[in-house]
Order: sequence, then C-alpha cells, then structure tokens
Amino acid sequence: MDNLTSTIGFLAAIGTTASFIPQALKIFKTKDTKSISLSMYLMFISGVLLWLVYGIIKQDIPMIIANGITLVFAGIILYFKIKYP
Amino acid sequence: MDNLTSTIGFLAAIGTTASFIPQALKIFKTKDTKSISLSMYLMFISGVLLWLVYGIIKQDIPMIIANGITLVFAGIILYFKIKYP
Repeated sequence: MDNLTSTIGFLAAIGTTASFIPQALKIFKTKDTKSISLSMYLMFISGVLLWLVYGIIKQDIPMIIANGITLVFAGIILYFKIKYP
Repeated sequence: MDNLTSTIGFLAAIGTTASFIPQALKIFKTKDTKSISLSMYLMFISGVLLWLVYGIIKQDIPMIIANGITLVFAGIILYFKIKYP
C-alpha cells in the first residue's frame, strides 16, 4: 500500500474515531443523553465489531486501529445512555 | 476476496450505516438535538469522507457503499443539529 493511501486511511481513522470523544465528554459533563438514540449505538457497535473482524481478516492496519478505538468510545457513550437514559 | 469476508464486510457496512437512521428519525420526531455533539458530527463526517476516498483507492466495495450511505445519514443529523441547536 503506497504512502498516500496509508495517510488517507490513518486520517480517516483519526476522524471517525476521535469524533466520539467530544460526544462522550459532552455526555460526561451534562449527563444528558435524551436526544441520543439507544438503537443507533447498539447497531453502530455491532457494525464496528464486524469492521474490526473485517480489518483483521484483511490485515488492514488503519481499519483495525480505527474500529478498535471507536469501539471503546462508542461503548462509553452506550454505557452513559444506559446509565442516564 | 472470499465469500465469508465479503459477507462480514457487507454486514459491517449495514450495521454502521443503518445505525444513523434511528438517530435521524429520533431527531426528526423530537427536533431535540441538545445532547448531540456538533463537533462529533463535523469530525465524523470528515473522517467518513476520507474513508470513502480510501475505499475508492482500494476498490473495496463494502467500504465504498458503507461510507457513501453513512455520509448521507450523518449529513442529515448534522443538518438537524445546525437547524435545531
């Protein structure tokens, strides 16, 4: 895989992965999850899990890193949604 | 790419893509986006755009379909967040 493609993959990974941090922080501060959809995060986490498996099968590093970390942050948001419905 | 891997990719694509539908519907019904993070969706959409480019470069069909559709739904949520802050 050439350099440009890996760079795009890593930037994409950072973008989609890091994006869950401000959402987790906002919920942590406000304890407000009212407008957040529980089914979104249940479905999203199942999908991310499958992307992780897909990335492992294809040995695609950006995908493995992105989906591994996204799983953690999306999991935190799901935890807050269940704790503060 | 063998059948199992493509199936996992497509299921992953459906999971992460379709997950934005319940969130968009919830906002459409309630017009409430208070607990949703604007910076999450700005960052997430930039990342999804890059994943789309990455998928096109790698000619990876599940990635192209997933990120193309996710872009639409995440874009709808961003539109609602801006319209009903």
